[in-house]
Amino acid sequence: MFDSIHEECGVFGIYEKENTKVASSVYYGLYALQHRGQESCGIAVCKDGLITQTKGFGLVNDVFNKDNISKINDGNIAVGHVRYSTTGGNNINNIQPLVIQHNKGNLALAHNGNLTNAYELRKDFESKGAIFHGTSDTESICYTIVKERINTHSIEDAIKNTMHIIKGAYSCVAMSSTKLIAFRDPNGFRPLSLGKTKSGGYVVSSESCAIDSIEAEFIRDIEPGEIVVISSDGIKSIKAFNNTKKSLCIFEYIYFARPDSVIEGLSVHEARQNAGRILAKEAPIKADVVIGVPDSGIDAAIGYSIESGIPYGIGFIKNKYIGRSFIAPSQEERENAVRIKLNVIKKTIENKSIVLIDDSIVRGTTSKRIIKLLKDCGAKEVHLRITAPAFMHPCHFGTDVDSEENLIACKYNSVDEICKYIGADSLAYISVDGMHKLANDLNCSYCDGCFTGKYPIEIPDNINEISKYSLTIKKL
Amino acid sequence: MFDSIHEECGVFGIYEKENTKVASSVYYGLYALQHRGQESCGIAVCKDGLITQTKGFGLVNDVFNKDNISKINDGNIAVGHVRYSTTGGNNINNIQPLVIQHNKGNLALAHNGNLTNAYELRKDFESKGAIFHGTSDTESICYTIVKERINTHSIEDAIKNTMHIIKGAYSCVAMSSTKLIAFRDPNGFRPLSLGKTKSGGYVVSSESCAIDSIEAEFIRDIEPGEIVVISSDGIKSIKAFNNTKKSLCIFEYIYFARPDSVIEGLSVHEARQNAGRILAKEAPIKADVVIGVPDSGIDAAIGYSIESGIPYGIGFIKNKYIGRSFIAPSQEERENAVRIKLNVIKKTIENKSIVLIDDSIVRGTTSKRIIKLLKDCGAKEVHLRITAPAFMHPCHFGTDVDSEENLIACKYNSVDEICKYIGADSLAYISVDGMHKLANDLNCSYCDGCFTGKYPIEIPDNINEISKYSLTIKKL
Amino acid sequence: MFDSIHEECGVFGIYEKENTKVASSVYYGLYALQHRGQESCGIAVCKDGLITQTKGFGLVNDVFNKDNISKINDGNIAVGHVRYSTTGGNNINNIQPLVIQHNKGNLALAHNGNLTNAYELRKDFESKGAIFHGTSDTESICYTIVKERINTHSIEDAIKNTMHIIKGAYSCVAMSSTKLIAFRDPNGFRPLSLGKTKSGGYVVSSESCAIDSIEAEFIRDIEPGEIVVISSDGIKSIKAFNNTKKSLCIFEYIYFARPDSVIEGLSVHEARQNAGRILAKEAPIKADVVIGVPDSGIDAAIGYSIESGIPYGIGFIKNKYIGRSFIAPSQEERENAVRIKLNVIKKTIENKSIVLIDDSIVRGTTSKRIIKLLKDCGAKEVHLRITAPAFMHPCHFGTDVDSEENLIACKYNSVDEICKYIGADSLAYISVDGMHKLANDLNCSYCDGCFTGKYPIEIPDNINEISKYSLTIKKL
Amino acid sequence: MFDSIHEECGVFGIYEKENTKVASSVYYGLYALQHRGQESCGIAVCKDGLITQTKGFGLVNDVFNKDNISKINDGNIAVGHVRYSTTGGNNINNIQPLVIQHNKGNLALAHNGNLTNAYELRKDFESKGAIFHGTSDTESICYTIVKERINTHSIEDAIKNTMHIIKGAYSCVAMSSTKLIAFRDPNGFRPLSLGKTKSGGYVVSSESCAIDSIEAEFIRDIEPGEIVVISSDGIKSIKAFNNTKKSLCIFEYIYFARPDSVIEGLSVHEARQNAGRILAKEAPIKADVVIGVPDSGIDAAIGYSIESGIPYGIGFIKNKYIGRSFIAPSQEERENAVRIKLNVIKKTIENKSIVLIDDSIVRGTTSKRIIKLLKDCGAKEVHLRITAPAFMHPCHFGTDVDSEENLIACKYNSVDEICKYIGADSLAYISVDGMHKLANDLNCSYCDGCFTGKYPIEIPDNINEISKYSLTIKKL
Repeated sequence: MFDSIHEECGVFGIYEKENTKVASSVYYGLYALQHRGQESCGIAVCKDGLITQTKGFGLVNDVFNKDNISKINDGNIAVGHVRYSTTGGNNINNIQPLVIQHNKGNLALAHNGNLTNAYELRKDFESKGAIFHGTSDTESICYTIVKERINTHSIEDAIKNTMHIIKGAYSCVAMSSTKLIAFRDPNGFRPLSLGKTKSGGYVVSSESCAIDSIEAEFIRDIEPGEIVVISSDGIKSIKAFNNTKKSLCIFEYIYFARPDSVIEGLSVHEARQNAGRILAKEAPIKADVVIGVPDSGIDAAIGYSIESGIPYGIGFIKNKYIGRSFIAPSQEERENAVRIKLNVIKKTIENKSIVLIDDSIVRGTTSKRIIKLLKDCGAKEVHLRITAPAFMHPCHFGTDVDSEENLIACKYNSVDEICKYIGADSLAYISVDGMHKLANDLNCSYCDGCFTGKYPIEIPDNINEISKYSLTIKKL
Repeated sequence: MFDSIHEECGVFGIYEKENTKVASSVYYGLYALQHRGQESCGIAVCKDGLITQTKGFGLVNDVFNKDNISKINDGNIAVGHVRYSTTGGNNINNIQPLVIQHNKGNLALAHNGNLTNAYELRKDFESKGAIFHGTSDTESICYTIVKERINTHSIEDAIKNTMHIIKGAYSCVAMSSTKLIAFRDPNGFRPLSLGKTKSGGYVVSSESCAIDSIEAEFIRDIEPGEIVVISSDGIKSIKAFNNTKKSLCIFEYIYFARPDSVIEGLSVHEARQNAGRILAKEAPIKADVVIGVPDSGIDAAIGYSIESGIPYGIGFIKNKYIGRSFIAPSQEERENAVRIKLNVIKKTIENKSIVLIDDSIVRGTTSKRIIKLLKDCGAKEVHLRITAPAFMHPCHFGTDVDSEENLIACKYNSVDEICKYIGADSLAYISVDGMHKLANDLNCSYCDGCFTGKYPIEIPDNINEISKYSLTIKKL
Repeated sequence: MFDSIHEECGVFGIYEKENTKVASSVYYGLYALQHRGQESCGIAVCKDGLITQTKGFGLVNDVFNKDNISKINDGNIAVGHVRYSTTGGNNINNIQPLVIQHNKGNLALAHNGNLTNAYELRKDFESKGAIFHGTSDTESICYTIVKERINTHSIEDAIKNTMHIIKGAYSCVAMSSTKLIAFRDPNGFRPLSLGKTKSGGYVVSSESCAIDSIEAEFIRDIEPGEIVVISSDGIKSIKAFNNTKKSLCIFEYIYFARPDSVIEGLSVHEARQNAGRILAKEAPIKADVVIGVPDSGIDAAIGYSIESGIPYGIGFIKNKYIGRSFIAPSQEERENAVRIKLNVIKKTIENKSIVLIDDSIVRGTTSKRIIKLLKDCGAKEVHLRITAPAFMHPCHFGTDVDSEENLIACKYNSVDEICKYIGADSLAYISVDGMHKLANDLNCSYCDGCFTGKYPIEIPDNINEISKYSLTIKKL
Repeated sequence: MFDSIHEECGVFGIYEKENTKVASSVYYGLYALQHRGQESCGIAVCKDGLITQTKGFGLVNDVFNKDNISKINDGNIAVGHVRYSTTGGNNINNIQPLVIQHNKGNLALAHNGNLTNAYELRKDFESKGAIFHGTSDTESICYTIVKERINTHSIEDAIKNTMHIIKGAYSCVAMSSTKLIAFRDPNGFRPLSLGKTKSGGYVVSSESCAIDSIEAEFIRDIEPGEIVVISSDGIKSIKAFNNTKKSLCIFEYIYFARPDSVIEGLSVHEARQNAGRILAKEAPIKADVVIGVPDSGIDAAIGYSIESGIPYGIGFIKNKYIGRSFIAPSQEERENAVRIKLNVIKKTIENKSIVLIDDSIVRGTTSKRIIKLLKDCGAKEVHLRITAPAFMHPCHFGTDVDSEENLIACKYNSVDEICKYIGADSLAYISVDGMHKLANDLNCSYCDGCFTGKYPIEIPDNINEISKYSLTIKKL
């Protein structure tokens, strides 16, 4: 119904010393990571070296039930995955974790991110006789690990070699018959956290909120270029690279991650408040109340309010019951149907001049509808403030930014024109510099390629071949 | 998982001049009223005088789908209902709207509230040969209307007579083959609103938020003791009583209703903010931050913050994906499992003295867990402020307050003891007088029987017979 | 896909001395009676006087599962019902057993048959204020029993009185909080059998095959006009009428009942073989092989073969996997799609002259398709022999015969014309006299009204009002 | 509930000249092949070179619906598969058709049969870096084809080479982006038929009954060692081997195939009648009636009757409504619960001496129960005649014969002992020689390895490694 951009995955893994209900732990962990991917999900469990799995299309709530969880529940290692994807949506073979058998055993792999040399890798494997069941780049990571495994002495050595072959963004959790292994690309595009369970085991998760959810204790972020190996020998860390340059996706702070997660030491909630504060400095306005578009605009609205002194108010109620089987209004009904999902608290906005905080503008249609809704309900003025710069470029590292012809910032020449289109009384994006300040104190640099077009690693010309490729028709 | 009290129903009705997709409108309306009842729901549609229906156990999202909505969609009148109930849960015949045939035609009835003379009515009808399919008092309302209809000239006359026979709380929407009729008990225990659709039809709803959701225009509350009749002759109002004494359930403002609803001219959101402000005056404390328990504590927390000057913060993130098929942790896991549903934003509370705002305490176990959670995450002090007085008495008007042996305020002699049990550093409830001030300016009085034990109408001694009765076993 | 006529119901009841898994027994019994009704089904169980139930649309296999059976399983009395119905199909309130509460307790009622004075009864009850949830005549039986119960000392007395008020066909199983009561109309239109369980309890069933299925022992048919009462006092029989005239539906033998059932001492299988033998005498033909249309034509084909000396062969294989969610071929594909459900064994029919036995012809379209199929597969001649006379009149006693404008025997003036239409080389129906001989030795007379138009009881002029009535629109 | 042996698969493929509803055709075809595999099924469709698929666990009726069929319906080539499997049952990656991408395009593969060198093939591919998603040998066939495809000019050349590498039983249907290719192992263990659709396209099916079901015309069996290629260039046949030795599984006639199928020119129905005739000669007995255990014993019973002159009778009614969600009776109820599935027609067997025909005895428990049932219902004598010799050896070619420790013929030393165990008055198996006569006139030889232990091709010692292998745990 609303336009937005999408994270593509969340990963979760657990290692316990004894066989126990590890699938339940992953199940709860995936609930906490559900916002990172809502199209499909899966859990694979290792018990005494044997891997079993359950997968399906839909939310955690749809795919898993007492029956299928209890069938796989018992084990000492498990990995899980939530996935969003635009292409290949109906390909059951893309659902992760991928679970495979190879020359030296079993492997389950869950991957968040996107490779930039996926096409090249795939072409190369195919030329040697490989067969691909799915269309995702994750299968190429598997092939690379398996190929490297043949001539190495351990799965972690194979992974280390693999990390020098695959390029791009990958925060992965792998499971062999005896080990849980987490590894993160040398740029650290996507977050990856490590925690400790109450029973002395370990947990790896895309975000710390999932570590909290199972009452495990957050330890630290896994480092860019790091491999963490957990087995009956305990935990060990391997640095796969001598030099790494951290380039965390800054949009994780602004939109993707859950506010209760902590990434690189910075609370996502605080980062968003900071973004609001910075916006208040960069784009001040006289107004009666600051409101946020739920859910991600709320924290920044509070920050803007604190910095500006304009009172914070609750402007919207979001219907929390709308689920997968919601029957969307027909096209003709749609224009009027925003309020099924998002209704206004009239008292907050009637006859007021409003500062409206949102995280981003993609196509502009949602912003336009929300502003119209506020005005229809009596808002005198609506000043839209966006906690991200304008999207103008694709993301090659695991996010589904809309295509450029749809991006409103590519279609219009100026912020004024966009402001006019969406019907706001004023519009301001946070500046790129301002955005970098939201995590000012951290010893961390960021990827802001979707805003600036400047990517931290080289993007090959054939980067888009892989998606076209998966649909290519060739005569046999 | 968490203890709480429950509203028992929401009603919705629509009348359009022409046959159109009225079931869709009710469907969206019920989505907006879902918080009022989550156990079962139903929609009945009248097309050319013939009534069809779809019903089931579960949320709106579970019960209705394209298939069953499209089968009944077309018509010019429709009524819908969402229901929560503790007893008779698995009795399919209790799902509303009740749709019946009688001597002079068809009738569909959706009811929010609870009769106080249900037992007496039922016994009387049974003694004359009536058969009951369900265990709810709504079937007795049907019988009364049908009995009165025999000797009157219109359904509205029958309803007018009925309103002098049935006693207690009822906000009802009825549908005959040609009319939509809304009627509300003379005390107006439960809310009932009237609106106008874009196409010139009318809509009736438990709360105004559902009127908003279908882009209809809110007109006014239906008055206590009023009957509103909508037909091809337009709309007319009948006063069934010469004198009425408004006794709206005040807990509608504090907890039941959606913040974006307006009842008796007062925004629920504002009422909750007022409650927070009053609490700040009645029970001030020195602290670093005010946080609310989502979702209902948020508005009051902002009010407390404004009044006290203590900054407002976001303390919790609630997992919005947990649905009906969520596999609750086993008993042994449960103590640790609060954070699956509710996680803390550590940044907000760590090393802080906290004012925590919640709407009520029922058994105390939830408050205890939440306070422990905050302390485990580093809160220095937790001062709990409750926007309702202590629950000590049953509600006889459509709310499911826990039984007295479970109510913590009945178990302990003083607020101090409760405070100690739940582990707070201080605890204060709003005073009964303070609570009445939250809607100070309105020309309206309230029912506060569950707090004070003083009910606006007489409660018969056999009030509880009806529920026992429905389980009574008699030898034939 | 194929035209046919439909039985409308099957009933089953069990009484055990101790609480045990009675719902399981009913569940297995309903499986055995599934052929009598495939639209909806239900089970009600009485435990310690309290009645619980599970119901739904669909086959036994669709409606019941471990979960909902286990919830109601324990008890000492239970009744079940399978239902087919043409009108009111989507009315959830028509699903049986009806379970109601009344002045003197609980009652569950399962009914097979059709009242002839249903309209009159309903009008009368309605005029006194009764409300009807469904459109079936069964609710009128309930009202009558409840009305009579008020002034009698036992449920069986009330039922006895009721049997003098209601008219038409009814084979019923009723359950009060302490008794299981079976009663059958004085004409005995529909079968009803009594059996004894291994644990010393009793079972009542529409057909004996369901008694077999739970390894109970068949005792006898319940007599026309008889009431059988089973309680902790044991079993007793009440004759509600001094004179009764048995008028069993003869089509039960020909088509409805399962071949392994025994009705009035005659095996259904044997009756069908007899029908085949009689046909062979009445309508002999020279041919190479006799085949039957599965499933009901098989027994008669063997009979025809024995009598005529023409070898019996298997001509068709019926696909046994086609279930509820089968996607029927579109209209344009349909003509060609008979063989999905019914394929020919070519070896049996190629270059052969065939005697084809079927139980009836309704619209003639199925016969036409099957004959075409046989000819396309190489049959030289196809001689169709029908084990029932031609349908020409409605059934008022619980069977859904097609309307007269659809019945081929009403459309055409002669058997020759029908023969030509369906493309057979010859066609013969069994004679009415011949049909009566199929159960020659029994001291039993039959209803053959759908063939002869002569009904054993008077049919009121307003017999069809009730179905129209249930759709009538009246202005309130 | 009953012990039996299982076919492991059925395959179906269609090629039409234009894009049309090919998935519907496969859907109907799979319905006709459902008896060959009931655990999972799938359909893959090629439209304009792009392959899409739908798969799942369950019957055709469970897995496919209007929604998922319509999503893939349009195309000009399609393949489908029904599958039964004992091991790897819950591995979603084993569901066929396998659909993969490789160096030169797309490939879908559906396989009936079992390779004898699967372990060797898999080890070899793995040693070169291959990854396996499932545990079936079909993935090894894919790898072999893909490997051969790299250095050949066409998919059919690659398949030809593949057929010289893989060993064992395989009746396969493959689909590339432009071709439908059927190929059958040089022994022709499993059947494979070719037909022509009404619109001039072609169809390939495990059995001819599925060709009939879509009103296509049966052309011929595909030859052992033959490759049939269907493309826009029409149809061509390639002989992959100079010499082939037909070794059709003879149990296809006796049990697996549908009676309306024709294999190698012989009607399965006729073959079963022949088996009955041969048994009557080999093991005559004086009796009153011959009955068959439904469904597969029926045809042979008729044959026995014809040869012996003992009348044929219908002894059992099988409940046709029992589906996947049937709640099996608990262990303690089971002994008594045979009659839910299979009830006796008492009239046929009471006080009679019975010849009972069944297709095989596996563990003996089912035979024992059925004989007890007949005796309990009054049979004087029961003489069991089996249309197959005794199972004593494993099948390596695609059938799941029980393990030797469970086979009653391995447990007991003589037919007399088995006879005594099952409680029959006499017992005879058809002789191996007799069995070969059931298809006497055909120029065809058979595999009877499961009876004789003599297999038509060499069985490697490590034949069972593959199944153990798939569960092997190796340390990484």
